[in-house]
Amino acid sequence: MAQTDDPLQLAQACAEKMYAADLASRELGIAINIPKPGSALAAMTVTAKMVNGHDVCHGGYVFTLADTAFAFACNAYNRVSVAATAAIEFLAPVRLDDRLVATATQRHRGRRSGTYDVNVTNQEGELVALFRGRCVALEKPLLAPES
Amino acid sequence: MAQTDDPLQLAQACAEKMYAADLASRELGIAINIPKPGSALAAMTVTAKMVNGHDVCHGGYVFTLADTAFAFACNAYNRVSVAATAAIEFLAPVRLDDRLVATATQRHRGRRSGTYDVNVTNQEGELVALFRGRCVALEKPLLAPES
Amino acid sequence: MAQTDDPLQLAQACAEKMYAADLASRELGIAINIPKPGSALAAMTVTAKMVNGHDVCHGGYVFTLADTAFAFACNAYNRVSVAATAAIEFLAPVRLDDRLVATATQRHRGRRSGTYDVNVTNQEGELVALFRGRCVALEKPLLAPES
Amino acid sequence: MAQTDDPLQLAQACAEKMYAADLASRELGIAINIPKPGSALAAMTVTAKMVNGHDVCHGGYVFTLADTAFAFACNAYNRVSVAATAAIEFLAPVRLDDRLVATATQRHRGRRSGTYDVNVTNQEGELVALFRGRCVALEKPLLAPES
Repeated sequence: MAQTDDPLQLAQACAEKMYAADLASRELGIAINIPKPGSALAAMTVTAKMVNGHDVCHGGYVFTLADTAFAFACNAYNRVSVAATAAIEFLAPVRLDDRLVATATQRHRGRRSGTYDVNVTNQEGELVALFRGRCVALEKPLLAPES
Repeated sequence: MAQTDDPLQLAQACAEKMYAADLASRELGIAINIPKPGSALAAMTVTAKMVNGHDVCHGGYVFTLADTAFAFACNAYNRVSVAATAAIEFLAPVRLDDRLVATATQRHRGRRSGTYDVNVTNQEGELVALFRGRCVALEKPLLAPES
Repeated sequence: MAQTDDPLQLAQACAEKMYAADLASRELGIAINIPKPGSALAAMTVTAKMVNGHDVCHGGYVFTLADTAFAFACNAYNRVSVAATAAIEFLAPVRLDDRLVATATQRHRGRRSGTYDVNVTNQEGELVALFRGRCVALEKPLLAPES
Repeated sequence: MAQTDDPLQLAQACAEKMYAADLASRELGIAINIPKPGSALAAMTVTAKMVNGHDVCHGGYVFTLADTAFAFACNAYNRVSVAATAAIEFLAPVRLDDRLVATATQRHRGRRSGTYDVNVTNQEGELVALFRGRCVALEKPLLAPES
């Protein structure tokens, strides 16, 4: 994969590389969009296997969607970044067949760490969860050197 | 389901009721054990659908396991309790086929809220994540009235 | 103190009542401004007693400023609200004589709880800390009944 | 200050060096004790300037005490460590003249980061707050080279 000087193209190339490898996110039907470097949208529909007997989504899947958006947002700079801590506020119940969108935004980027906020909304535009994550950037490129 | 005056029996009856309804946790192969009221163990093996291309488990599934232990621990008192906030520290990578155990312990229980700590360890006994959750207890019994 | 139907006037009356009682915030020289219900600005200059020997501000005072903005933002509705949990990310060092402004914004308000974000910036406009707090609203008016 | 091979002596030497410079903690009357490397106790009595008009301690001072214990615990290894994130759960009100003790314990120590838990109790032994902090260790010794 050829490297690029354009920050958005680089961010999108990093996202493609990650997405190809990220079986877990694809298995959940998560779709990714990179509007700009440091931001990411992750969308997912709540399926039967994510709910309990009352058709309420397990909070773990809401977290997983937000965490995925965070991971794609913070890996935009061709440097492998891993989550160090994350916190989530559950604000409204999520139900079977809800269409969730997690929007990750970069709040701070230091030399070795970054802080990202993620809002999770449903198909009504209602805010169902707030997430904040801190990542650590490793000294390791995400993309293979140009070949 | 007959109610009981024994706190441990009550906690276990609540867990059985929850587990029967919790398709999401069962779908992930999570097993639950209630050693005492306010505590819960949740165990899970990391499967192929939980990992990315490098065989590293998606942090969302580690969170989901911890969140499940938290939910079973805080619902021990026959009062429906829901997660309000949760935070996780990722301490070590989790890999395909790892056997994880999440141990939830009650740190505080007020009239309407509770705080629980969850340690997640792997088959080597290594601590891979720390989780802390706060729940809100609703004015709603978990078990059906005796019939 | 006469009650009011105007939400901003009510928020400001609540802030005045709190500020009059809040010796701790006044002792630190914190000034408060309420631009709209659910929001609050708290400003403070870092003094010698807040720093260590390297003229770096103790993180506790940065937290205290943010927590104060949070408290004034969430007590805007004439219902006593108390902090349940709070988390802070320290992003840049704060030094002696820095002029800090903490801006609290309401992200969610439920029947009994609310979530607020606070940004803390210095005199250069640099973001030095991010804070997120969750409060619980008690069934207790903040203002005395009209007399 | 002569260096030492004994881990406890090293931790205590680091604490002495920090305490001498930490005007903010001394100004609040905080006393420090280092029972073992990676642990710290910080004790403080709630004074009039820390409370509001109802004699309830400002949460910021409870955080400050916990954050101080955390700082002394994580700086035990002769490597300057700074707080990156911290979260606190407020569990019970703290009042004027309460004697608080914050006990910091190391939960994880990696190459460049560490996670510490802090319990804050009052003179009755009641748990009033839970704190969790993550620090980053810089490539910088805390103690001056032997002279």
